[in-house]
Amino acid sequence: MPSRYLSFRCSVPWLILFLETLFLIHTYFFFPGVDDIYSPSNFYPEFQDVNHMVIFGFGFFLMVLRRYGFSSTGFNFLLVVLGVQCSVLVEDVLVFLRVQQIIFLSFCSLAKAVVSMTAVVISTGAVLGKASPVQLIVMTLVELIVFYVSRCINKTLLQVPDHLTLMHVHLFGAYFGLAVTSRFPEPPPGLDKNRSTPKSDLLSMLGTVFVWVFWPSFNSILADSKREAVLNTYFALAVSAVAAFMLSALTSKDGKFRMTHIHSAVLAGGVTISYTAHSIQHPWIAMILGLLGSVITILGSHCLQRCFNPAFKLKDTSGIHFTFGLPALLGAVAAVVLSVVEKGIAKQWNNLSSLGYLVFVDVGALCQTISTALVTGLITGLILNIKLLKAVHVSKYFDDQFYWEVSF
Amino acid sequence: MPSRYLSFRCSVPWLILFLETLFLIHTYFFFPGVDDIYSPSNFYPEFQDVNHMVIFGFGFFLMVLRRYGFSSTGFNFLLVVLGVQCSVLVEDVLVFLRVQQIIFLSFCSLAKAVVSMTAVVISTGAVLGKASPVQLIVMTLVELIVFYVSRCINKTLLQVPDHLTLMHVHLFGAYFGLAVTSRFPEPPPGLDKNRSTPKSDLLSMLGTVFVWVFWPSFNSILADSKREAVLNTYFALAVSAVAAFMLSALTSKDGKFRMTHIHSAVLAGGVTISYTAHSIQHPWIAMILGLLGSVITILGSHCLQRCFNPAFKLKDTSGIHFTFGLPALLGAVAAVVLSVVEKGIAKQWNNLSSLGYLVFVDVGALCQTISTALVTGLITGLILNIKLLKAVHVSKYFDDQFYWEVSF
Amino acid sequence: MPSRYLSFRCSVPWLILFLETLFLIHTYFFFPGVDDIYSPSNFYPEFQDVNHMVIFGFGFFLMVLRRYGFSSTGFNFLLVVLGVQCSVLVEDVLVFLRVQQIIFLSFCSLAKAVVSMTAVVISTGAVLGKASPVQLIVMTLVELIVFYVSRCINKTLLQVPDHLTLMHVHLFGAYFGLAVTSRFPEPPPGLDKNRSTPKSDLLSMLGTVFVWVFWPSFNSILADSKREAVLNTYFALAVSAVAAFMLSALTSKDGKFRMTHIHSAVLAGGVTISYTAHSIQHPWIAMILGLLGSVITILGSHCLQRCFNPAFKLKDTSGIHFTFGLPALLGAVAAVVLSVVEKGIAKQWNNLSSLGYLVFVDVGALCQTISTALVTGLITGLILNIKLLKAVHVSKYFDDQFYWEVSF
Repeated sequence: MPSRYLSFRCSVPWLILFLETLFLIHTYFFFPGVDDIYSPSNFYPEFQDVNHMVIFGFGFFLMVLRRYGFSSTGFNFLLVVLGVQCSVLVEDVLVFLRVQQIIFLSFCSLAKAVVSMTAVVISTGAVLGKASPVQLIVMTLVELIVFYVSRCINKTLLQVPDHLTLMHVHLFGAYFGLAVTSRFPEPPPGLDKNRSTPKSDLLSMLGTVFVWVFWPSFNSILADSKREAVLNTYFALAVSAVAAFMLSALTSKDGKFRMTHIHSAVLAGGVTISYTAHSIQHPWIAMILGLLGSVITILGSHCLQRCFNPAFKLKDTSGIHFTFGLPALLGAVAAVVLSVVEKGIAKQWNNLSSLGYLVFVDVGALCQTISTALVTGLITGLILNIKLLKAVHVSKYFDDQFYWEVSF
Repeated sequence: MPSRYLSFRCSVPWLILFLETLFLIHTYFFFPGVDDIYSPSNFYPEFQDVNHMVIFGFGFFLMVLRRYGFSSTGFNFLLVVLGVQCSVLVEDVLVFLRVQQIIFLSFCSLAKAVVSMTAVVISTGAVLGKASPVQLIVMTLVELIVFYVSRCINKTLLQVPDHLTLMHVHLFGAYFGLAVTSRFPEPPPGLDKNRSTPKSDLLSMLGTVFVWVFWPSFNSILADSKREAVLNTYFALAVSAVAAFMLSALTSKDGKFRMTHIHSAVLAGGVTISYTAHSIQHPWIAMILGLLGSVITILGSHCLQRCFNPAFKLKDTSGIHFTFGLPALLGAVAAVVLSVVEKGIAKQWNNLSSLGYLVFVDVGALCQTISTALVTGLITGLILNIKLLKAVHVSKYFDDQFYWEVSF
Repeated sequence: MPSRYLSFRCSVPWLILFLETLFLIHTYFFFPGVDDIYSPSNFYPEFQDVNHMVIFGFGFFLMVLRRYGFSSTGFNFLLVVLGVQCSVLVEDVLVFLRVQQIIFLSFCSLAKAVVSMTAVVISTGAVLGKASPVQLIVMTLVELIVFYVSRCINKTLLQVPDHLTLMHVHLFGAYFGLAVTSRFPEPPPGLDKNRSTPKSDLLSMLGTVFVWVFWPSFNSILADSKREAVLNTYFALAVSAVAAFMLSALTSKDGKFRMTHIHSAVLAGGVTISYTAHSIQHPWIAMILGLLGSVITILGSHCLQRCFNPAFKLKDTSGIHFTFGLPALLGAVAAVVLSVVEKGIAKQWNNLSSLGYLVFVDVGALCQTISTALVTGLITGLILNIKLLKAVHVSKYFDDQFYWEVSF
């Protein structure tokens, strides 16, 4: 039995080599000369912020397990650099299939690729410590393709603007990850490797603060009105960070703070406001959204861990359901409400049928994204657990030593 | 007795909730529409540098205690995000009371708020491990209001330019913190929790390097001549970092380096030059100021810890007196001397009475800031130690477990 | 015997003081007024990226030894801030000797100084844990002067453009460091202090990710066509990071990843492309260079550690030969090949003699750099090990406690 596990693990490099060859061929044929490649832009500082946030910030953000530090950071790094190339490839090939148009390889398409990768990073959080690198790479490929298809549906059928379809990234990532993790066998109850230590919590805090600081860049990188996006995101983040401490003390025993609450809830404001950061005209709305995001995260973490997860036998390792899923859901609903109210006031609530159509389209995009994520996530989870890909015995979960040469 | 401590600790969330409601109401009434809110600016990169430095850098900079890592980083984060909102509120309300003028909520006012918060962060260093979150929040509120009032006095009565009044932030923060900490009971002598470990020193070094790298942005963010401010600060920081190693080896036993020296003295140059970074015309003056800042910090750390602190029964946990107080004092004096010399040379030492007036004004601003900081700090210290607010027994000092659910 | 070691260690501060005085005098005489000092530029964000990368990133990148964390970070910091001033001084004095021309102290000259310092930081990696601060400072001085002279030869005799001469920094640093370390006595075989722990590996990973993220800024800071430089470097880095994981799993036992492979090979792409990042017109070439860089690093690490290092009795502590030396060599050869092919195609392979001249010049610059590095490195290694400078007994290698007051 172990031999099967081992023998498969050796196939990681060949899978990577195959993908890398594909990327090379794609780049060779799609981008022949430099003149049609490098579009003018001064995108670099923001692109670097987002790149830094996704690679460094999330790498350390995910470091919550006591014996899984190398893998959390290392696999996140591997998946992001592989996924960015993969995302550029997927976008180009699908654009090529649909319609012949000029393709630019610019900071803009790289930025889109990095933002898309956030979906994968979030999903990774759900299967953290359970999925092997091969499973993670396969998941990355499937998720990027499905996310691109889901964005296309939103864009072409429901007329959602391009940069808003990308903001479904948190929602998609969270529910895809949840569906995938539901197909993984549960870890044995006595296992203590899936707990955190003060040291791992501290390094995870380091990552959280990094992600927090760079979140305004993330929300504004593809927006039209960058200044509004940055300021609204900053306010939402500030309020949700404060509310995280407040609610953590309120909901825990003895009024002590709990580090997992802080980890997840300080970011809730940024996730909640991602759909509306560029369009909110009053900072107090951003602040209220940040507050609500924090509330739903912390209440969600209690409800989900007590009722929902045991009922569905879910084991969401780093709590991405309440960290990213619920605030994104709230943000999507808030975006619908805000746009209806805004349009309604502008037209003095006359043209109600057009308002109804607006609601229909926005709710449609939301439902389409979630259902696609859940269905394809379930299928992906099933695929990942066929014998061919099954790489880790349940007793080896959450352990660096299975993947890394660790010397003490 | 313990019940009283616990019961009060539960009031943290309500205090935060009250403040957050206040901020929301303020934002709702003061900033009605977007057009008069978002002033044009390309401030974002520098604002983010300073934000990153204050939240991430100082959070880890303060992590010098062996069992206080969560609280150092976490409370610093809480105070900064709460304080920035609070600072915007205080500035708006006091501006509103004084004179009816148009208020902009822009990166500029946010940048001022973050810079003001540095005073609180510095003061926090003095009571690190001794003050509970409630005490810290109350201290933040009082300090921000008093600092704003002190700035107003400097600005209106003494005609100090606006961005220079903000540079009193180190001086004010250090002496306010010292006065507050003098009213806290001393920790029992046998306690070893207020020592550092190599691990905490290393993480603190991480924070120090972060703060060091971003300091030029801090000194230049509100200056008129940014380029000069950045370059002069860089030179002062470079010299003071080199001098820190030199003096640490000179003053310690066996010529070994001491990590606490490095922590405090590498930043001394940046603090010393904060008043004059934008106006110095010769880089060698910046370098000499950096050198003197480092000297005063390291000599100060020896003198203060041996003579001054025992005499006044002060327990300045992270040594903010010599890290920020003394270099800022030196910088203020140097600013007076430099401006007198410059003016004197320009007028060939004729108009001595106007020079005297200049000295009088600058020294007045300096004395006013220090005395306001000391007096209000003492009063704040007394308020924080009334029975209602007293939250931590002296045996629970410097311990994460009193505030956080820590799992090992 | 120990007394001699100790007595010398006390001379560190005097050496630093002497250098600092020199810098002050130099600044005083060379930069009299502000008008001819601060040249206009908006260089600041990129300068800060590179500064951050060299001080923070490399400081933690070098933290691979279990008991040498303070020294790795601290001495790197000291050397960089000292070396930057020293580099500005060396450049000015040598420019002054050669030809009387106007000297600007701008971000550009500071950026050049920081980039030059990378050579020293790389060399430091080879003698990490073996050289004392005095030896490191002397090495820094000698290396900066020799590197400047080598750049001058390339620039004046071989007509290499200025910013390309700076890109020899990895090659020069690696071979200089190797030659220096070959003159140090070998550590005793039983010593286990030169091994890494999971904790030190994790912090080193943190530094590696930092360096990785900022590498595009490093390669583009002095280039003419910044956009191409950034994008090509990003692609090369992405491919080499992916290839690092692939090759690590292929070459190690059981298909496990090895952290040292990841540390060194993810950066290989950035080093390989440093000569050509600004001029490559097709991204697939950048990707292939990144792949080859990663391959040569990982194969090199196996070959060198098994055959080359034992044969030459080399002990290259942090493996800079295969991390920086071999990819830089590959990059230099690739630059020659690419420029010949490009010129050849442009002229339809007619004017072969001019192509031959081109090859001669480029290969000449490469050989000149390596041979200068090796010869002067050997001489420096001999100088550092004369009795006067010899400061560390071999049993005290790799130990913080010899240099720092460490409290447990």
